[in-house]
Amino acid sequence: MRHNFSGITHLLFVITFLVSSQSFAQKEKDNLEETVVKFRETALKDRAGYEMLREFCEIGPRLSGSQNSIDAINWAKNKLEEIGCDSVWLQPVMVPHWERGDVEELIISVTKQSLNILALGGSVGTPSSSLTGKVIIVNDFDELKEKSELVKNNFVFFNRPVDQGELNTFTAYGKTVDQRIYGAIEAVKFGAIGVIVRSVTTAYDNVPHTGVVIYRDTIPKLPAVAIGFEDADLLEQTVKNDPDVTLELKLNCKTLEEAESFNVIGEITGSKFPEEIILVGAHLDSWDVGDGAHDDGAGVIHSIEVLDLFKRLDINPKRTIRCVLFINEENGSRGAIEYNNYSNKNSVNHLAALESDRGGYTPVGFTVEKDSSAVIKLNKFLPLLENIGIDWIKNGGSGADITRVDNIKYKIGFVPDDQRYMDIHHSPADTFDKVHPREFELGSAAIASLVYILSEKGDFIED
Amino acid sequence: MRHNFSGITHLLFVITFLVSSQSFAQKEKDNLEETVVKFRETALKDRAGYEMLREFCEIGPRLSGSQNSIDAINWAKNKLEEIGCDSVWLQPVMVPHWERGDVEELIISVTKQSLNILALGGSVGTPSSSLTGKVIIVNDFDELKEKSELVKNNFVFFNRPVDQGELNTFTAYGKTVDQRIYGAIEAVKFGAIGVIVRSVTTAYDNVPHTGVVIYRDTIPKLPAVAIGFEDADLLEQTVKNDPDVTLELKLNCKTLEEAESFNVIGEITGSKFPEEIILVGAHLDSWDVGDGAHDDGAGVIHSIEVLDLFKRLDINPKRTIRCVLFINEENGSRGAIEYNNYSNKNSVNHLAALESDRGGYTPVGFTVEKDSSAVIKLNKFLPLLENIGIDWIKNGGSGADITRVDNIKYKIGFVPDDQRYMDIHHSPADTFDKVHPREFELGSAAIASLVYILSEKGDFIED
Repeated sequence: MRHNFSGITHLLFVITFLVSSQSFAQKEKDNLEETVVKFRETALKDRAGYEMLREFCEIGPRLSGSQNSIDAINWAKNKLEEIGCDSVWLQPVMVPHWERGDVEELIISVTKQSLNILALGGSVGTPSSSLTGKVIIVNDFDELKEKSELVKNNFVFFNRPVDQGELNTFTAYGKTVDQRIYGAIEAVKFGAIGVIVRSVTTAYDNVPHTGVVIYRDTIPKLPAVAIGFEDADLLEQTVKNDPDVTLELKLNCKTLEEAESFNVIGEITGSKFPEEIILVGAHLDSWDVGDGAHDDGAGVIHSIEVLDLFKRLDINPKRTIRCVLFINEENGSRGAIEYNNYSNKNSVNHLAALESDRGGYTPVGFTVEKDSSAVIKLNKFLPLLENIGIDWIKNGGSGADITRVDNIKYKIGFVPDDQRYMDIHHSPADTFDKVHPREFELGSAAIASLVYILSEKGDFIED
Repeated sequence: MRHNFSGITHLLFVITFLVSSQSFAQKEKDNLEETVVKFRETALKDRAGYEMLREFCEIGPRLSGSQNSIDAINWAKNKLEEIGCDSVWLQPVMVPHWERGDVEELIISVTKQSLNILALGGSVGTPSSSLTGKVIIVNDFDELKEKSELVKNNFVFFNRPVDQGELNTFTAYGKTVDQRIYGAIEAVKFGAIGVIVRSVTTAYDNVPHTGVVIYRDTIPKLPAVAIGFEDADLLEQTVKNDPDVTLELKLNCKTLEEAESFNVIGEITGSKFPEEIILVGAHLDSWDVGDGAHDDGAGVIHSIEVLDLFKRLDINPKRTIRCVLFINEENGSRGAIEYNNYSNKNSVNHLAALESDRGGYTPVGFTVEKDSSAVIKLNKFLPLLENIGIDWIKNGGSGADITRVDNIKYKIGFVPDDQRYMDIHHSPADTFDKVHPREFELGSAAIASLVYILSEKGDFIED
């Protein structure tokens, strides 16, 4: 009898526990969902981030070391203070300082036709008033070797277009960008005088796309320029018609002394676990043309707006939400390296870091670096994130900055639609008007949602 | 011994069977995947559909009954013949014929300020030289009833904006469009003289968006116009400042006699099951402003390019692939009704129908009407479709045309990203330049891929 009674009591207790724990879990789920929907509605209705991005783009391009980059750093610091961060600080770091000159000319000698060029970022200028030579067209480094005997005292024209058949434009970019990055150090081996690169772009237009060119200190540095798709076709045809045609190149870009710069950091202190950091970041610098609106103005404002959404909605996160705007991602990653030094020295405990550096387009998913157990764990929250248009969480890269930081448990990349990104990336066409307000704001809200879930659930191992 | 030997033989047989059947299934899967990738690469590299869409848009808007719509019908028929369809035909049907006039004026009497308007599609003109009245602002039909005593001899201004907080812009549209469709028949009940509608748009600009207004023959028909977001704000403020302000409306649009028109149909005959039809369709008509580039030029060319991709790649489908370009989706659905009559009369056996009428943006998924077993079945092929950017297959609507056709086993809707669609829908801003070539071409390839899988696998019950 007693035993039975005890059994019933036990059963009742278990039922009560199950019911109450289930309703607690349900309540928590409802609360998370409610917040995700609030993020979405607030971001889409207010468009506050979109207006911040407009202001930010008005500064102009933000190449590391430039006055614009310092203006952007100050703007971001002020903005983080304005929205009410608990602390905001600048992290000093020395950065390279390259300047495009006012002379950028590539002329077909015989016709005096001028091609539309941009010096690659970091390129040396032409040594005297101009360089003159014939043009050896190659598609890749193998073809360069095959034609090596023709190269001496001439330009090498790396003419490989991106593979438009790829689904993902970052994949297409990745398959082609070697000619821009390493073209100069490969061509100089065979005595070339300069390098011309068909822009790594998905657009069939005449806009040249810049980006970094790598040199080695032990070998001569060749001037290197990008040309747009149409002028690449024109040059290809011109050289095919007359292989002896010569070009004249004039560039007065130069590398100056390294300059002092800063990462910009702002945070909202966690109410329960302040020492556990959830980092949301992007890179503050851009190339020196256009507005750097998608690359990476969008990511910068996503990161600021995440904190702003918490403040506007009066949400106190359990863990610390830290916005880090890294300087110098484009040509040196000094900001990421410096932040990593700081993080290691202080044993900063990053539960997770999330980078937005793929533009301000419609969100589709998140990628998680290496740790596939995190993918499985995070996928539990996918039904919540579907409220903000996230269709999947998969293994994949995170971001060029946070990938360099050691003390981060989960490194996550924000993935928006990529179809238009490589049309404008690193080019004068990456301007504010290319950003769509709803697409952009959904990004802020999607990142805020995942950050909020991480902040509430922590390592989310149980339940 | 014998028994054992037989057992081993049997085992070997089973193993051989399993291996060969598995390799057969694997081979078939590989073949399907190879074709999906071919569709993608061909569409993205050639951009043939995008160039077709450029030509198609040059015809201009294609409202049912207009000369442009007849030109578009002929263009489509020729194109289907050109790409090598096995048969192409026109299906006659009578359609409404409404014409926008050359007078569209809405003027604030006191300031003579002119608002930027578009008559709603099907609107009557103003009876005399103009209509004059005060403006009663309401947000919905409930508020109209509350203010009913003020309405007599005045204009009703339906001022409800779309809910920007919605994730899906079609959902936002659906929640607001009642004021445009039914505003006139509601307002006339209380003696209104005309209806002004805040455009159902996600864009904060001054572009008015038209679309159908419904009348009843038993009650008077009120002239009805749309105004853009900015002028709606202006009008709202003007009336709030001075409730006695009057407006003058002049419209000379009119409805003419019904006109003869056509559905355009072209098909590639199935090599093995020619009587089983897989329909791919869109609506050929558009509103009478802009190019109808996304609505539904994109769907028209998607549907044509699906057949073109089969022909270009020399793929002989097992089942018949039929492209149906429905006339008059926008204001009557006469094309869909006529096709359904024909289909019922001839007991046409449609295994599936797929409609593209959500624009030419980046593909994200497919929705399947009602039959959720089909969703489960089709999801088996999702890994194949991920090669073309399809992230999910869910239950949902198909399309306004195919939903009216009875003899279709699986009704499927193509779902691209929707964030920009309602900025331009039914407006002068729906022009060819708003279509991105890669986004558009991925749509053609995604639809072709699903159509190909259906053609090869049939009802795909057995794998």
